[in-house]
Amino acid sequence: MGVAVADLDEAVDLYATVYGMPLVHRETVHEQGVEAVLFDVGENHVELLAPLADDTPVGKFLAKRGAGLHHVAYQVADIEATLRRLREAGVRLIDETPRTGIRASRVAFLHPSASGGVLTEIVEPAHG
Amino acid sequence: MGVAVADLDEAVDLYATVYGMPLVHRETVHEQGVEAVLFDVGENHVELLAPLADDTPVGKFLAKRGAGLHHVAYQVADIEATLRRLREAGVRLIDETPRTGIRASRVAFLHPSASGGVLTEIVEPAHG
Repeated sequence: MGVAVADLDEAVDLYATVYGMPLVHRETVHEQGVEAVLFDVGENHVELLAPLADDTPVGKFLAKRGAGLHHVAYQVADIEATLRRLREAGVRLIDETPRTGIRASRVAFLHPSASGGVLTEIVEPAHG
Repeated sequence: MGVAVADLDEAVDLYATVYGMPLVHRETVHEQGVEAVLFDVGENHVELLAPLADDTPVGKFLAKRGAGLHHVAYQVADIEATLRRLREAGVRLIDETPRTGIRASRVAFLHPSASGGVLTEIVEPAHG
């Protein structure tokens, strides 16, 4: 789950101190225009996303809708196979081919119009 | 993760057929004014929420923001203890005491103003 935040330090304090979630990773992902902070929740993550500039996707999201739930990400074993299967099912994609995500993962976004208004990301973690 | 949907059958088809997630539960939760459908994703669930009427919380959400991510729910072992800890941390709550959720769980919502704009639910599953 990705959460758009305006004040990263305040949000980190909420998730780490109040919610008590372990902070496991912090990275500036220039390709996506965000500083991202990952917290463990069971076998899942919450990813806080602070925009690097106003004209980034997350910057525009914040201006339009304010802080809050931004996207959901599902881990897949083989992102090429999943993209092929989605295309065959007629699902509209933002990314026809994978790009680089956090922690050297390979990621692709489905188009919200094809996924019930939910910005949906598939993620194949880096191997080895 | 809870997703507000306008057309439940269409959304069920997307998650079950296209995404291939197992549908594990379907329930009308009158107290929350929704028909809810649960899908398994690893140890987690996606919960589709279709409003029973326009003047329900999810009905108002759809009218204002359209279909999409509605809330996130975290499982807790002891909801009374968690609510006490959140109150002590100064977190504003929608529900000061638990109410009944899906599958006879006990649930409470934090106020989005206290949780970075994310409507956040804590859930203690029914025991036994």
